[in-house]
Amino acid sequence: MRTRPLKVALLGCGVVGSEVARIMTTHADDLAARIGAPVELAGVAVRRPDKVRGGIAPELITTDATALVKRGDIDVVVEVIGGIEPARTLITTAFEHGASVVSANKALLAQDGAGLYEAAARHGKDLYYEAAVAGAIPLIRPLRESLAGDKINRVMGIVNGTTNFILDKMDSTGAGYQEALDEATALGYAEADPTADVEGFDAAAKAAILAGIAFHTRVRLDDVYREGMTEVTAADFASAKRMGCTIKLLAICERAADGASVTARVHPAMIPLSHPLASVREAYNAVFVEAEAAGRLMFYGPGAGGAPTASAVLGDVVAVCRNRLNEATGPGESAYAQLPVSSMGEVVTRYHISLDVADKPGVLAQVATVFAEHGVSIDTVRQQGKDGEASLVVVTHRAPDAALSGTVEALRKLDTVRGVASIMRVEGE
Amino acid sequence: MRTRPLKVALLGCGVVGSEVARIMTTHADDLAARIGAPVELAGVAVRRPDKVRGGIAPELITTDATALVKRGDIDVVVEVIGGIEPARTLITTAFEHGASVVSANKALLAQDGAGLYEAAARHGKDLYYEAAVAGAIPLIRPLRESLAGDKINRVMGIVNGTTNFILDKMDSTGAGYQEALDEATALGYAEADPTADVEGFDAAAKAAILAGIAFHTRVRLDDVYREGMTEVTAADFASAKRMGCTIKLLAICERAADGASVTARVHPAMIPLSHPLASVREAYNAVFVEAEAAGRLMFYGPGAGGAPTASAVLGDVVAVCRNRLNEATGPGESAYAQLPVSSMGEVVTRYHISLDVADKPGVLAQVATVFAEHGVSIDTVRQQGKDGEASLVVVTHRAPDAALSGTVEALRKLDTVRGVASIMRVEGE
Repeated sequence: MRTRPLKVALLGCGVVGSEVARIMTTHADDLAARIGAPVELAGVAVRRPDKVRGGIAPELITTDATALVKRGDIDVVVEVIGGIEPARTLITTAFEHGASVVSANKALLAQDGAGLYEAAARHGKDLYYEAAVAGAIPLIRPLRESLAGDKINRVMGIVNGTTNFILDKMDSTGAGYQEALDEATALGYAEADPTADVEGFDAAAKAAILAGIAFHTRVRLDDVYREGMTEVTAADFASAKRMGCTIKLLAICERAADGASVTARVHPAMIPLSHPLASVREAYNAVFVEAEAAGRLMFYGPGAGGAPTASAVLGDVVAVCRNRLNEATGPGESAYAQLPVSSMGEVVTRYHISLDVADKPGVLAQVATVFAEHGVSIDTVRQQGKDGEASLVVVTHRAPDAALSGTVEALRKLDTVRGVASIMRVEGE
Repeated sequence: MRTRPLKVALLGCGVVGSEVARIMTTHADDLAARIGAPVELAGVAVRRPDKVRGGIAPELITTDATALVKRGDIDVVVEVIGGIEPARTLITTAFEHGASVVSANKALLAQDGAGLYEAAARHGKDLYYEAAVAGAIPLIRPLRESLAGDKINRVMGIVNGTTNFILDKMDSTGAGYQEALDEATALGYAEADPTADVEGFDAAAKAAILAGIAFHTRVRLDDVYREGMTEVTAADFASAKRMGCTIKLLAICERAADGASVTARVHPAMIPLSHPLASVREAYNAVFVEAEAAGRLMFYGPGAGGAPTASAVLGDVVAVCRNRLNEATGPGESAYAQLPVSSMGEVVTRYHISLDVADKPGVLAQVATVFAEHGVSIDTVRQQGKDGEASLVVVTHRAPDAALSGTVEALRKLDTVRGVASIMRVEGE
């Protein structure tokens, strides 16, 4: 075993960074044995140097992250500060000064993964980011490496723990959205400003990363269709239950049936209780992968948290260190397929539509005519009358989203339709 | 991209080998783009050259596997013939003649993984074997690489599809073992001689491989405690249901609570319906991993079959080819921890015991005394009388297996105990 240590610089020492530092210290012997050389924490860049940081030697702490990544003796820079800047500049500066990079920064990778990969390749360095999607769950490496000999057709996952906690609460207790969100906030599962989670921004960034890897195609954050889950109601869950379904916020990356294009989207959807994703409870994440040869795979585990995310970061640190000892690099960007990314209108899905309608003869015929005119075929209709009003619940067969949303627009214009109570896509069948 | 192709030799062209050959042909462009050089099928060693093999050029077929691995121009030898010999000699000969090896051979890896690794290392070549455990499910790579920065405490999995199919049938239909086995045979899930599956030999080989990787320790097949599932009855399933459990054949690799030793075992066990492994149906496989930092992870998918296994093989082929272009090798054997492997007696588990007893006062006191004398504490007792006889179902708290089995032996000697109807371990809580 080499005795000269490999040097790791840590950018950020919050929930994840402090766990990375802790494990590097407590498990130093194991890490050394697995890498083939000791690893040494060579510096930790923080914003608030006065904060007490147990176990980290004070002389390692600096507020000058730029100087740290420019030192020139750093083998691996671990970036766990998040956000676009200064993370992007620090990462590219690290490559320029000879370091490889392990990042947990989903926002940056979704926005400019191509630019980071390009910088890494230019300097012959590694860019690893297992922790950026689904926390501790090994997912990026299986998709990039284990399935490198297969053709991935669909990646569908629960990649945001906060929203899964809220939806699971609503499902199991009958609570409304706000009540479940309040509980998530009280328990620390949701941030004070939950927008990034509940509006699907976080999941959309992960969808862009997953689609890019799965389809060997650059998928930008802007390519991802996004709907949050703030409008999911207790009534939606009741409807889902009647269909033998539950509701999850899903990130779905799909290859079109003809293989010529791909799509990526985030929205709430009903999925059958028999689907493996339906039983993912609390804040857990799970990603379901369908590949041509491998068939249906699922990866499940904690999607966030200090220690789980640190586990993913350290797996990457070990890999990057091994590569450096081998004087090699791991897989870089793979975007050779360059498939076009289609818009949401072209996605083929099913709608579950609840309409408030007048309770009189002929309404169903009118409604059915609108579906037919848009080329959307109906799977089931359930009609319920109450005091001159009625509700009509229609579940469609599979059709392009544009035809489905066009149908809903036309339904809104019918005199006999008082309102569209809810629309929910149905997936996983 | 390099234009000179990397050469792959295939040993075996059965269910898996023919799928490997087919995908290498139909997806040649994708494989080339992902590797950075074309891959070429350079030879296929078979036993019966006269068998029609669609899509494989006849001049590639040979019966002389030894000459093929000695050619010297082969980059990767894919071994999918199985069994100990000639597979072992062919693999070591391949290393000697400059090739890296991708193998799906669980029996050989469980019996002599250390020897193969040693041969690979001596010649600076790669040994990859994702397909040897749980078919298409990325598991070896996540354990060896993604979790390389973590400490794995337990690996517990359903790693044999045949037995899971049988147990799932028994659970869902109330069928007995023989009836469910017959159906599995008729549907092609069980072989004509199902011994390797139903007696747990196949799962034990996989347990040895998984324990070795998880604990960085050499675990031989002989180290694995093994019990088959041929004696599981419909009555056991009825008992399991009363406890909110189902029965699975589990491979369990555990680090002892003090961290100083490890165990590996295969046996049927009751697990709670709420455990993620309980809902693994039909012939699917799933492996549950508990790591110190990552927490609870699960990997799920098809554990066998031509195309799924070929997917795992080809993922390894891509990795090995990339390594060769990099003039590097992937991770080798990691057995630095050298933890002792304890026997089954030291495993801490729980027993579910059904006793046929005389229906008279004082029996429960007698039975409870035996448990107490062996230091085993009782969780629940259920007593049922019928015509002078009674059944007593005892579920214990956690205790060393030696104490539990000692208790059962002592119970058998009680006059009032007419027989021990069944013993089943309870796991996953």
